[in-house]
Amino acid sequence: MAAVSPLAPARFPDLPPIPGVDLASAHCGIRYKERMDLMLAVVAPGSTVAGVFTRSLTPGAPIDWCRRALKRGKARAIVVNSGNANVFTGKRGRDAVSQTVAAAAKVFDCDPREVFVSSTGVIGEPLPAEKIVAVLPAAAASARSDAWEEAARAIMTTDTFPKGATRSVDILGTRVTINGIAKGSGMIAPDMGTMLAYVFTDAAIVASALQPMLTAGNDRSFNSITVDGDTSTSDTLLLVATGKAGHRRITRAADPALGAFRRALDDVLIDLAQQIVRDGEGAEKFVTIEVSGAASAAAARRVGLAIGNSPLVKTAIAAGDANWGRIVMAVGKAGEKADRDRLSIAVGGVPIAENGGPVPGYDEAPVARHMAGRDIRLAVDLGVGRGRWTVWTCDLTHRYIDINGSYRS
Amino acid sequence: MAAVSPLAPARFPDLPPIPGVDLASAHCGIRYKERMDLMLAVVAPGSTVAGVFTRSLTPGAPIDWCRRALKRGKARAIVVNSGNANVFTGKRGRDAVSQTVAAAAKVFDCDPREVFVSSTGVIGEPLPAEKIVAVLPAAAASARSDAWEEAARAIMTTDTFPKGATRSVDILGTRVTINGIAKGSGMIAPDMGTMLAYVFTDAAIVASALQPMLTAGNDRSFNSITVDGDTSTSDTLLLVATGKAGHRRITRAADPALGAFRRALDDVLIDLAQQIVRDGEGAEKFVTIEVSGAASAAAARRVGLAIGNSPLVKTAIAAGDANWGRIVMAVGKAGEKADRDRLSIAVGGVPIAENGGPVPGYDEAPVARHMAGRDIRLAVDLGVGRGRWTVWTCDLTHRYIDINGSYRS
Repeated sequence: MAAVSPLAPARFPDLPPIPGVDLASAHCGIRYKERMDLMLAVVAPGSTVAGVFTRSLTPGAPIDWCRRALKRGKARAIVVNSGNANVFTGKRGRDAVSQTVAAAAKVFDCDPREVFVSSTGVIGEPLPAEKIVAVLPAAAASARSDAWEEAARAIMTTDTFPKGATRSVDILGTRVTINGIAKGSGMIAPDMGTMLAYVFTDAAIVASALQPMLTAGNDRSFNSITVDGDTSTSDTLLLVATGKAGHRRITRAADPALGAFRRALDDVLIDLAQQIVRDGEGAEKFVTIEVSGAASAAAARRVGLAIGNSPLVKTAIAAGDANWGRIVMAVGKAGEKADRDRLSIAVGGVPIAENGGPVPGYDEAPVARHMAGRDIRLAVDLGVGRGRWTVWTCDLTHRYIDINGSYRS
Repeated sequence: MAAVSPLAPARFPDLPPIPGVDLASAHCGIRYKERMDLMLAVVAPGSTVAGVFTRSLTPGAPIDWCRRALKRGKARAIVVNSGNANVFTGKRGRDAVSQTVAAAAKVFDCDPREVFVSSTGVIGEPLPAEKIVAVLPAAAASARSDAWEEAARAIMTTDTFPKGATRSVDILGTRVTINGIAKGSGMIAPDMGTMLAYVFTDAAIVASALQPMLTAGNDRSFNSITVDGDTSTSDTLLLVATGKAGHRRITRAADPALGAFRRALDDVLIDLAQQIVRDGEGAEKFVTIEVSGAASAAAARRVGLAIGNSPLVKTAIAAGDANWGRIVMAVGKAGEKADRDRLSIAVGGVPIAENGGPVPGYDEAPVARHMAGRDIRLAVDLGVGRGRWTVWTCDLTHRYIDINGSYRS
């Protein structure tokens, strides 16, 4: 068992119950012999759902299924196993999904398209669906409204801590809660981990209004983090709304009643995304990259990700080196409009490069102190426009090589 | 001094003299105190030149100059210093280029636009051009036709061995020679190294015919290698033709008389590019990635580079793990058309995955033996078209972290 990341939160947050959501974890022994490896979320009939999935062109069989099921916009259960990703498993993989979905639909007496499935773990090994099917009835019977941390633990692979987040806000004067759990320890570690996140709320919002909020929130959160620049074959983010809070049902994403909800949803997504970075494989420093002055927000994000994905920037940060030359390099390779002679860079709030060169005689002491810490802040202004974006990443250390150089067995 | 890469060739090749090309190296003490840090190539009046430069949008001042000078298509001298990249140095950087070019134009009594300059080394420090200017006359006086290895050494930064290649072919019945030298130890190591390559021939070819051949050859060679996916601010490839071989001057790239020359030029460029990979920072294995069955050659290259840039693939190779699941992941993230269920992968010539899953019962012993060696061959067929491309990379080891995590000082 790997030591817990030095960037982990002190403890798992208190996630309150959400009316209409029950959780269970179970042991089906797919790969892990001594821990829970199945998570089951049971949501009230009539719950709506939105989803975002990997952009990989070689996705796993569960992704194909979820994309199809999502068209209906309804959810009754989410079944997630860890230890086996059910990716590159051909027809057997599709059959494993069908068996799991059919069994859950029977247990919950629902349409199969109300069952969502995810798998995370090793690629290319057949998923023994019968092991999942066998434990489903008992898991369903044991589902509880306060089992968030156990659920978050059951979906872990190379993660060193369970990840959860919660916010509460009002919609039309009614208090609603948003809870989320996630796993991931690397944007991807395709042998043994990928990014999965499940967010639940008791708000009453139709699926067609949930989806654009989730897509926008995902852009600002999970699509703005990187550990190693590798894109998973299984990335999944689902948002389920049970409607049990009791306010009038919201039917449009643009409804002004959703203002606070939208911000709280973004907060939960960003909180979970940051926890994944904090559990990045081998991470010893958490890095916030604020890009401003870009031609557009999209350009700012691409520049931020180019910096966050650069192995040269990340190894320098691991060494506590405020190596702005490598940041200039990464800006240059991002392919977005930049003006070398108007670029400025600050580290920990201290401007160290501007107007096409280093700031003459800047005080290196506070910069060195900042770089020695756990939370690193880089600010880059491109000087060509008003686009801005924030990206989060971690450093690249020897432990990343150790973790990913070890054999699969 | 770092140990020589385990992938280095046994020795520097014998590069024969090329009529019209003399080389010198000198010590000007910009950063390295105990070795040559200036390379001067003097070429015969009337020599033609073609060039390819970094696509970085934050290029160094020497790149800006070379792009302008290249429009004239003539060369008389190339001046290259190591230890300082003259990048992100603002007006002082431009002035340093002007001083160097003016001094060389005076020594060789030529148009300033016949002088090409490159700088490689630390970013963001002013380049003391006066140190270069001071040694130019003596360097010019000492230039010799047999100083190829010394020249290749003078442009090294984090390189662990000097890089050279040579081929001879006939044009219209006349023997011509192509010699090239290069430096680079990583697609980029922007503090202390970038990719520079200088190729010389005694063939008589006008600049407008040289350029398309160089651009095409560069695509197949330097643009098909990756060490860390980071793009240099200083990458430079120059091809100079002195015309001293004596055959009829070739005026069109499509001239059939250039058939053998074009292939020999490609060979020299690929040889140099592979040597850069073999000197990749921390490299312990040389990896050839052959992609076939893609929608186009460009698609095949992008897929090959996605595999070659994946830190997960590269750490697995370092560990001797034939981790085809990570190759599937990298194919999926490349953004090119692929069919998960028609993808096939071979390692060291042994098919290990096909038709959407692992090859049942394949013999792991020869694959494990292959992965334990120095030269790794991966073949990936996407099964969607006829596009093919070959990419070269190296593994990702602890030494990469050590090299790039060390402080600049």
